[in-house]
Amino acid sequence: MQLNVYLSGEIHTDWRDQIIQACQMLDLNIVFSSAVTNHDESDSAGDLLKQANTDEGQGYWRDHRSAKINAMRTKTLIEACDIAVIRFGDKYKQWNAAFDAGYCAALNKPYITLHSEDIIHPLKEVDGAAHAWATDVRQVVETLRYLLK
Amino acid sequence: MQLNVYLSGEIHTDWRDQIIQACQMLDLNIVFSSAVTNHDESDSAGDLLKQANTDEGQGYWRDHRSAKINAMRTKTLIEACDIAVIRFGDKYKQWNAAFDAGYCAALNKPYITLHSEDIIHPLKEVDGAAHAWATDVRQVVETLRYLLK
Amino acid sequence: MQLNVYLSGEIHTDWRDQIIQACQMLDLNIVFSSAVTNHDESDSAGDLLKQANTDEGQGYWRDHRSAKINAMRTKTLIEACDIAVIRFGDKYKQWNAAFDAGYCAALNKPYITLHSEDIIHPLKEVDGAAHAWATDVRQVVETLRYLLK
Amino acid sequence: MQLNVYLSGEIHTDWRDQIIQACQMLDLNIVFSSAVTNHDESDSAGDLLKQANTDEGQGYWRDHRSAKINAMRTKTLIEACDIAVIRFGDKYKQWNAAFDAGYCAALNKPYITLHSEDIIHPLKEVDGAAHAWATDVRQVVETLRYLLK
Amino acid sequence: MQLNVYLSGEIHTDWRDQIIQACQMLDLNIVFSSAVTNHDESDSAGDLLKQANTDEGQGYWRDHRSAKINAMRTKTLIEACDIAVIRFGDKYKQWNAAFDAGYCAALNKPYITLHSEDIIHPLKEVDGAAHAWATDVRQVVETLRYLLK
Amino acid sequence: MQLNVYLSGEIHTDWRDQIIQACQMLDLNIVFSSAVTNHDESDSAGDLLKQANTDEGQGYWRDHRSAKINAMRTKTLIEACDIAVIRFGDKYKQWNAAFDAGYCAALNKPYITLHSEDIIHPLKEVDGAAHAWATDVRQVVETLRYLLK
Amino acid sequence: MQLNVYLSGEIHTDWRDQIIQACQMLDLNIVFSSAVTNHDESDSAGDLLKQANTDEGQGYWRDHRSAKINAMRTKTLIEACDIAVIRFGDKYKQWNAAFDAGYCAALNKPYITLHSEDIIHPLKEVDGAAHAWATDVRQVVETLRYLLK
Amino acid sequence: MQLNVYLSGEIHTDWRDQIIQACQMLDLNIVFSSAVTNHDESDSAGDLLKQANTDEGQGYWRDHRSAKINAMRTKTLIEACDIAVIRFGDKYKQWNAAFDAGYCAALNKPYITLHSEDIIHPLKEVDGAAHAWATDVRQVVETLRYLLK
Repeated sequence: MQLNVYLSGEIHTDWRDQIIQACQMLDLNIVFSSAVTNHDESDSAGDLLKQANTDEGQGYWRDHRSAKINAMRTKTLIEACDIAVIRFGDKYKQWNAAFDAGYCAALNKPYITLHSEDIIHPLKEVDGAAHAWATDVRQVVETLRYLLK
Repeated sequence: MQLNVYLSGEIHTDWRDQIIQACQMLDLNIVFSSAVTNHDESDSAGDLLKQANTDEGQGYWRDHRSAKINAMRTKTLIEACDIAVIRFGDKYKQWNAAFDAGYCAALNKPYITLHSEDIIHPLKEVDGAAHAWATDVRQVVETLRYLLK
Repeated sequence: MQLNVYLSGEIHTDWRDQIIQACQMLDLNIVFSSAVTNHDESDSAGDLLKQANTDEGQGYWRDHRSAKINAMRTKTLIEACDIAVIRFGDKYKQWNAAFDAGYCAALNKPYITLHSEDIIHPLKEVDGAAHAWATDVRQVVETLRYLLK
Repeated sequence: MQLNVYLSGEIHTDWRDQIIQACQMLDLNIVFSSAVTNHDESDSAGDLLKQANTDEGQGYWRDHRSAKINAMRTKTLIEACDIAVIRFGDKYKQWNAAFDAGYCAALNKPYITLHSEDIIHPLKEVDGAAHAWATDVRQVVETLRYLLK
Repeated sequence: MQLNVYLSGEIHTDWRDQIIQACQMLDLNIVFSSAVTNHDESDSAGDLLKQANTDEGQGYWRDHRSAKINAMRTKTLIEACDIAVIRFGDKYKQWNAAFDAGYCAALNKPYITLHSEDIIHPLKEVDGAAHAWATDVRQVVETLRYLLK
Repeated sequence: MQLNVYLSGEIHTDWRDQIIQACQMLDLNIVFSSAVTNHDESDSAGDLLKQANTDEGQGYWRDHRSAKINAMRTKTLIEACDIAVIRFGDKYKQWNAAFDAGYCAALNKPYITLHSEDIIHPLKEVDGAAHAWATDVRQVVETLRYLLK
Repeated sequence: MQLNVYLSGEIHTDWRDQIIQACQMLDLNIVFSSAVTNHDESDSAGDLLKQANTDEGQGYWRDHRSAKINAMRTKTLIEACDIAVIRFGDKYKQWNAAFDAGYCAALNKPYITLHSEDIIHPLKEVDGAAHAWATDVRQVVETLRYLLK
Repeated sequence: MQLNVYLSGEIHTDWRDQIIQACQMLDLNIVFSSAVTNHDESDSAGDLLKQANTDEGQGYWRDHRSAKINAMRTKTLIEACDIAVIRFGDKYKQWNAAFDAGYCAALNKPYITLHSEDIIHPLKEVDGAAHAWATDVRQVVETLRYLLK
């Protein structure tokens, strides 16, 4: 049994690496995937498609162009994954993480949320459709280990 | 032509009523729906199902129980709608609004976002999958009027 | 807002009538449906299709023939409902109720389970995929009333 | 031709091992999968996610948490299988087995039931949606052998 | 409860009328539909689209053109029906009836076959995916009456 | 029997009105729908959503914004229709008509193409997935009349 | 590019072997599959599941039991194939072949029919949903070779 | 991470080879696919299936027969791809490219359009459903490189 696990959400801490390394040490048969997690690269993903004659270097359309390029990757990976882990940190809006959770829910695809206790209430809809809630990386890893028994 | 329009997101201002009333004045053939928008009722939706023998009056499981009851309504209405309008205000986390957007996107169901310019960047993934972005209620109403021409 | 609610499970008590009458008294906009709940009629549904030349008056094939006729009704109604209420009583195997729950889960269709506390453990998978668990009819009615607010 | 076969149901006898070993001796090209079948591990799957501040060591929410973790595995495997074998023994409620059968039926995925003659009647809905009914392991193995000819 | 019932197959006897009239006398809430059952009209459905410059008055392409026009109607009605009744008579190939049965089966849509005992064997795959087999019109009507109880 | 018919393609001649009027004279039970067919309105659909601070009055993003608003209407109507009629005239690129044809084909939704003989070859892929090809409005009307017999 | 090709229909001539051998000689990258084509084995597929206490050695239920076992194989293979070839010979009813064609059509899965000119008319609905019609094995092989260019 | 990329549209320039070679030089893990791009072979794909007795050497039915054979390949490859690149050149009608775009859109499958600025307006519906628009091959390659980071 192999699992494809998509890691969604916060990009400012190294939680992805922690999960991946712990699972490797346990020799779990998991293929991990995620969005491009370099913030600057992600924001400027669409800049090379900038149109010569329009003033779109900043603002809505610049973001729009980058977001849609990133969506080509994230849609493909989410639809191919078995399980997602969706991380909410303590900074920024992180609406993309909640968006991914809704996307998974509509596809009937299970996900684990990873966040601290102090944001239980605002995340109640996201947690309500989740299959598990973890507060730290170790719990996620233990859950994945259990799933692969 | 009739449209079923789901109104998702912010519950602390009267944007829903403004849209509904403006559309009624224009005599547009639209059936509107939304989650239960009374904050206290929504939070306590599951309290009547409280188990006698467990200490779940507060915390994760209380929220969980309410969130899943609310989801029975929101899932049903989102899946039945033609178009959603998803509002992000300037307060609170509003992860449920982003969750609804992801849910719509996975179902290939069009939605309009409604938010001010200052949150373009954190909403870029949500806007990237939207069919339109409006900054005020009037623009939403005009767009709905156009769609029903 | 109207709800189509399918009532699945136990046929030896009048829980269906209790729910329907209570909802009517509250004037809730709900269309209820269910399997044929007369036990003898349900068991003999296929007898009129009995083949002249085979000994199938009893046993597997008699049950099979009736079960598939009943399934034409239940499949149609479950696929058309918005929400199911699935009742487990204290007698009989009631595997058909659990089957309906699995059917709903695979279709991503929300359901409420209705059962007493003493069978929480054997129903944990069925409850795990449910949107709510109620222990009495009044709780179901209150939940439906809330959903239609 | 390779088959992915999911083995669902009873965990108190060694019917899974019997099928797997017999198929290996016949050199059949089958990948078998199943839920975690260790009863204690399965029941306590969610304990490591226990919340510090709530009294959920027992009862509904403990079962709920474990059931949803187990569902991440079973959903993934059932959706990936070609055929399921669903076993009903002579003890316990086994509602999870009937739930899996309903899940398969809704996905239009064929399954074989495995049970003795004395529970034909209560299983008639589950058998009505099955592609075959076997009374012993040998019949299941012979059927799988035939399917791979 | 209302049923949409599609009547497929044999067009050389009046079995459709018999079913419709019997159901009307019983006041059953059924909307019946079917292909165009006038043989000549059906065969020549595409003639008005005949191309001026090609010799397609007869043969494969004439049949092809008519078949695809008829398919617009039959596809639409089959996909909208709740249940199909599929009749095999004692004359002609009737491959279109078997085609409709396969179409229903793939959509997980229940159907009743209606045919005499002497063609059980060649129809075994079609009957294998059916929810019921009837040998005369009366049995079909009784089954429909039961389904609407 | 009622048909929902979506009329896609050319907006510079009155073929839509001709079909609608002819069907009305024949008293056919058809609900017609289409995109907004006023060229200027369609092109400027998104202008009211123009952002204050960006130079997007012309070019790609202006078109993009309008196209996505129009798509909210066309997607909704195409997904709700039973049959589409897709018209290719002798002017302009008309890629949106071919796009609608591909959209219908992927949804397994039948459509009739309406175009003259001189563009048979470049339309061969579009016609290859069509259920009928008509060269004039009268043929379309006759086909619709036949479908509703 | 690899193709999975399902070979459906007539089992009394060696057309399957002819196609497979010709494709092997051309070194085409195709994985072929089919039902169990030994007539006696296919008819008796379910005999090992015969119930001790019922008289079902012959007739409807014997056929039914075998047909559903065979369906486990054919459903799995048809749903996994890219393209089907469906052969109609000059003997027997061959309703199973037409059933498979309908199954493919509902899944939007392309198929090639293989039959002589004298049965064009009774096969017009089956051909109407096909992507190609061939009259001999050589044409099928050439078509497959073209598809893999 | 591997991507399956379908290259659709213009067949008169070597844009496919340019993309494939550039991606190979960058060692990107991409499997490319496309329709048969030899114009004459594509047009005559169905000629070997020509019927002896009908005059279909030219015209609608010849094109129809070839188009449906080509569709077996293109449908299979589009449904299997992760991302499509759809190229519009400056010659010919290229309705098949727009058809492929619509097909992708209905399947919720992302695509990149590749065309010059002078056809922005007639392609606005096709671009409106796209995830990116590129004006030259280099931009496509850079986008693919980014997606595989």
